[in-house]
Amino acid sequence: MFLPLLILCLALSSFSFPISAVESTIHVWPKPRSFSWPQPQQATLLSSTFTISAPKLNNTHLSSAIKRYQTLVQTEHHVPLLNPTAVNFTTSTPPLQTLLVFVSDLTAPLHHNVNESYTLTIPTWGPANLSAQTVWGAMRGLETFSQLVWGHPSRVAVGVYIWDEPLFGHRGIMLDTSRNYYPVEDILRTIGAMSENKMNVFHWHITDSHSFPLVLPSEPELAAKGSYGPDMLYTPDDVNKIVQFGLDHGVRVLPEIDSPGHTGSWAEAYPEIMTCANMFWWPAGSKWADRLASEPGTGHLNPLNPKTYQVLKRVIQDVATLFPEPFYHAGADEIIPGCWKADPTIQSFLSNGGTLSQLLEIFVNSTFPYIVSLNRTVVYWEDVFLDANANVSTTVLPPEHTILQTWNNGHENTKKIVSSGYRVIVSSSDFYYLDCGHGGFLGNDSEYDQQTSDNSGNGGSWCGPFKTWQTIYNYDITYGLSEEEANLVLGGEVALWSEQADPTVLDTRIWPRTSAMAETLWSGNRDETGEKRYAEATDRLNEWRYRMVRRGIGAEPIQPLWCIRNPGMCNTMNKETANVRLSVPGDKAHKDTLKIAVEKEAAIFCSKQRKNRAAKQGLQT
Amino acid sequence: MFLPLLILCLALSSFSFPISAVESTIHVWPKPRSFSWPQPQQATLLSSTFTISAPKLNNTHLSSAIKRYQTLVQTEHHVPLLNPTAVNFTTSTPPLQTLLVFVSDLTAPLHHNVNESYTLTIPTWGPANLSAQTVWGAMRGLETFSQLVWGHPSRVAVGVYIWDEPLFGHRGIMLDTSRNYYPVEDILRTIGAMSENKMNVFHWHITDSHSFPLVLPSEPELAAKGSYGPDMLYTPDDVNKIVQFGLDHGVRVLPEIDSPGHTGSWAEAYPEIMTCANMFWWPAGSKWADRLASEPGTGHLNPLNPKTYQVLKRVIQDVATLFPEPFYHAGADEIIPGCWKADPTIQSFLSNGGTLSQLLEIFVNSTFPYIVSLNRTVVYWEDVFLDANANVSTTVLPPEHTILQTWNNGHENTKKIVSSGYRVIVSSSDFYYLDCGHGGFLGNDSEYDQQTSDNSGNGGSWCGPFKTWQTIYNYDITYGLSEEEANLVLGGEVALWSEQADPTVLDTRIWPRTSAMAETLWSGNRDETGEKRYAEATDRLNEWRYRMVRRGIGAEPIQPLWCIRNPGMCNTMNKETANVRLSVPGDKAHKDTLKIAVEKEAAIFCSKQRKNRAAKQGLQT
Repeated sequence: MFLPLLILCLALSSFSFPISAVESTIHVWPKPRSFSWPQPQQATLLSSTFTISAPKLNNTHLSSAIKRYQTLVQTEHHVPLLNPTAVNFTTSTPPLQTLLVFVSDLTAPLHHNVNESYTLTIPTWGPANLSAQTVWGAMRGLETFSQLVWGHPSRVAVGVYIWDEPLFGHRGIMLDTSRNYYPVEDILRTIGAMSENKMNVFHWHITDSHSFPLVLPSEPELAAKGSYGPDMLYTPDDVNKIVQFGLDHGVRVLPEIDSPGHTGSWAEAYPEIMTCANMFWWPAGSKWADRLASEPGTGHLNPLNPKTYQVLKRVIQDVATLFPEPFYHAGADEIIPGCWKADPTIQSFLSNGGTLSQLLEIFVNSTFPYIVSLNRTVVYWEDVFLDANANVSTTVLPPEHTILQTWNNGHENTKKIVSSGYRVIVSSSDFYYLDCGHGGFLGNDSEYDQQTSDNSGNGGSWCGPFKTWQTIYNYDITYGLSEEEANLVLGGEVALWSEQADPTVLDTRIWPRTSAMAETLWSGNRDETGEKRYAEATDRLNEWRYRMVRRGIGAEPIQPLWCIRNPGMCNTMNKETANVRLSVPGDKAHKDTLKIAVEKEAAIFCSKQRKNRAAKQGLQT
Repeated sequence: MFLPLLILCLALSSFSFPISAVESTIHVWPKPRSFSWPQPQQATLLSSTFTISAPKLNNTHLSSAIKRYQTLVQTEHHVPLLNPTAVNFTTSTPPLQTLLVFVSDLTAPLHHNVNESYTLTIPTWGPANLSAQTVWGAMRGLETFSQLVWGHPSRVAVGVYIWDEPLFGHRGIMLDTSRNYYPVEDILRTIGAMSENKMNVFHWHITDSHSFPLVLPSEPELAAKGSYGPDMLYTPDDVNKIVQFGLDHGVRVLPEIDSPGHTGSWAEAYPEIMTCANMFWWPAGSKWADRLASEPGTGHLNPLNPKTYQVLKRVIQDVATLFPEPFYHAGADEIIPGCWKADPTIQSFLSNGGTLSQLLEIFVNSTFPYIVSLNRTVVYWEDVFLDANANVSTTVLPPEHTILQTWNNGHENTKKIVSSGYRVIVSSSDFYYLDCGHGGFLGNDSEYDQQTSDNSGNGGSWCGPFKTWQTIYNYDITYGLSEEEANLVLGGEVALWSEQADPTVLDTRIWPRTSAMAETLWSGNRDETGEKRYAEATDRLNEWRYRMVRRGIGAEPIQPLWCIRNPGMCNTMNKETANVRLSVPGDKAHKDTLKIAVEKEAAIFCSKQRKNRAAKQGLQT
């Protein structure tokens, strides 16, 4: 029978049939590791007096989360974009009255690799149960529960059993608050949204060359003179508010004070500890190798000046006091030789046979042990170990106290780092940099003065093109690693650098693309057969994006609403190659749209066509 | 003296000096054609009882604008990003009490090429004067006046004389409200922002294949069945509100009802007048040329069905009634042969020797004269004339009643259109499409499943990369045309197609990039010497962007605040070529940042260095 049907299918290729709408169900984002809701899927009303109860659980952060979720599930009334027709809504069972929360260890702090597992059972009758080892796992389960509630009056899925825990312990967002300032409320909103995506690390790139917004009790002049102004500061109270908010949401707040590079803003208070501060970043006529900074905004701390360490240690101590988080991010990216070389004492050091790496080693040896003495694990950008001009060895940076964050060269640098024995946080600029693809920010750049465009290139963005949600979703952060090496990958972070970002674009740059990483790091990006599940994820992410918007997060749309209402109809399905399409005259507009053949889906589609056709013609297959 | 200094400058190339901050002044965006504010630039207080007075001018739209601007200038209190130290603030002159408005022709309607000129005089003593031929020119002048006021208490520039009028009569934004819906308030906010940028045409792409949100009294079923839902409609009252708001802001509201393609949403009410409706857009196994739609969402009006015209003419008449605008946009883009060919009657027509162009001609001959009979000039997308498969000739579309809007092939299609005698509106997708560069929206696209990125390509966006504000600013819409041909260029429109846009991204996608086009079409993109002024425009656009944000428009940032506070310091300045930089190992991150040499600025910079150096060393030059 196969050959005739194949011919039939090919013969049908110039026709089409409507695809009947795929029946929707209720989705949870990120998808749980194990989710059981057997057919016929059932739902019941959520009682108007529904409560979340945690008997004898005395934990302020858990109480805060329970209060928050109780309000959310009673008031959200999310309307699914597709009516969940597959769900058998029943009034024969009484409304759900209670979710009981059990936590076995109330004291486990919110540190890296804390247990975040939970089980959630919503029976068809009687109270629902959420069990977790820790407060933090319970918060993940509360979020899952909230996404199983919808409608007005509120309904809740029943007959549900979920077991869940993350694949990776570190699931973060890095936000740069130096190049442009973000008010505290924006940071809190971001942390709240992270929690809803089961993310757990807010990596706060607080300072850089452009502004120093952090008010430090021991070094107040840094912010007083180096911030953008009195209305653009983070006070100790602000920090405490953010840290506590993070704890209430299961999100660690990991501070970064970048040094010795990216410190131009320190020069306003301490010009004497700086090299090359307030210079034009790329002297006229000089080679790129002789620039003074990686981008406009010059200034490095001088590793040969003892006062550097007097100031920096007070900074470190204050930061360690303000932030309870056991990781301390010390930066150390992009040391630009030209900046250090601008200083006379460094010129002497180098002309006497010293090297840039030795300068860096002096700097690290004068700061790293101090940070470790404060019971902190030190996170550095990969540059401190991999930079071609200035790097230090594993003896200077012992792996037991050091984590490296990679951003260059994709999986190659990840491999270099873990094969040297370091733990790694992956934030590849090829996949996880959210700012890319919006052009450059430099002034007087004649690159954009053109009257003919070939629609190629990255449009002036060094890390363009734009990283789509699919690009982020599909990236495997342990790609090419042995199992042993993969165990050193703590997780990943998307990064929003703020040259062209500020509160006006915060939500749309971050969401829902970051939701894509959140799921990949929580439960992976593959289905049960091991195939990438990006196609199936599209509908779920659409639904989740709309739910986030209604929760007050300005996540950007990934498709027209029409695609959501007509599941599968916006798919790419064709066996043709790009060459065929490119050869069609007059189709310039779409010549680049669809580059890759999706043979598998085409086969599935053809199979459906066969069945439809057979059914219509009364044929038996 | 020159040679030694040149050598000195070259010798200095490995050093740098800080550039002293360039003194700022008050900016107007778009820059007026003629702006005189002689040194020493002076300012005085705006009286707390300041009024805008238009004696004997009885015009409801002007009165509305005056009321609006009077409130704005008294309450805005814009704080310039750089203190305008160059301005000589004087309290020796009394506060400005009055702006007197004179209009010579109160009746000129807001049509294409209405006179928008104005003169604004703010003397150092006595009332300011704004004179315009029309109400619409007066509104442009009021906006200019508002941008000359700043601070708390409010100050206003005095000793100012401005003459101004636009280079192009048509300065628009196209917004697609079919693929995703925008509430009325978002449209109003956009029109308000357009007015502040002296733009004058809101091209409303109301309907498409995805939804039909416009409630038409004679054809209510189209929206009742074809919209996204009862909460996503534009009622006649909504339309009237938008049209009146446009008139109050000097912005025409130009409706587009796209047909015969892009009409899939009509099939819900009238399946019988459609071809290929509700089909999968690209049948499995078929060639790109045999697809049924340009993107998901199929359906064309059937030109051979008489009922098509019964429905369409009622639509046209209703739209002409709802929108007073004398231009009517009839669409006619992207006729996809496969969609028409799916219909049996069209198959017969074609197999009997008929052509696709003849089908289109039947359609145009059945609609175009009717639109013209309603005293409308018909705007079509260029496809109706230039499409390879289906196009009509100038005899069918007489140029006196027809305007073509170009979107493909940059200036080449502009040239084709005007050289055929048609007036043209330029919205080149290479320069003016605001949605480009954010990836594609298709589902199950394996293109994004990759573990290694080469940081090239357009990231799945057919019209990528992202169009930067500079790309938009620098484009000359009359490039390559004779003077006679250039006279047929009415102006330009940026376009926001909504596959991946909705209210969450509306402001940031549009602003401030559209401000760039607004200035280029108002007063050009060149300085008095004929050089492109994009470098100088950067500081002004930064300032204008911040003023827009404070006025409630969520325009995205184009630079870190640091760049604005340190004028010139974020410039690109180097004589090196991209090749030199690409050869530097370890600079992958920035290898693509800076591709073009800016020799002129480098020379200026070097000259400043010479002067600084000379001053410091006590040398006489």
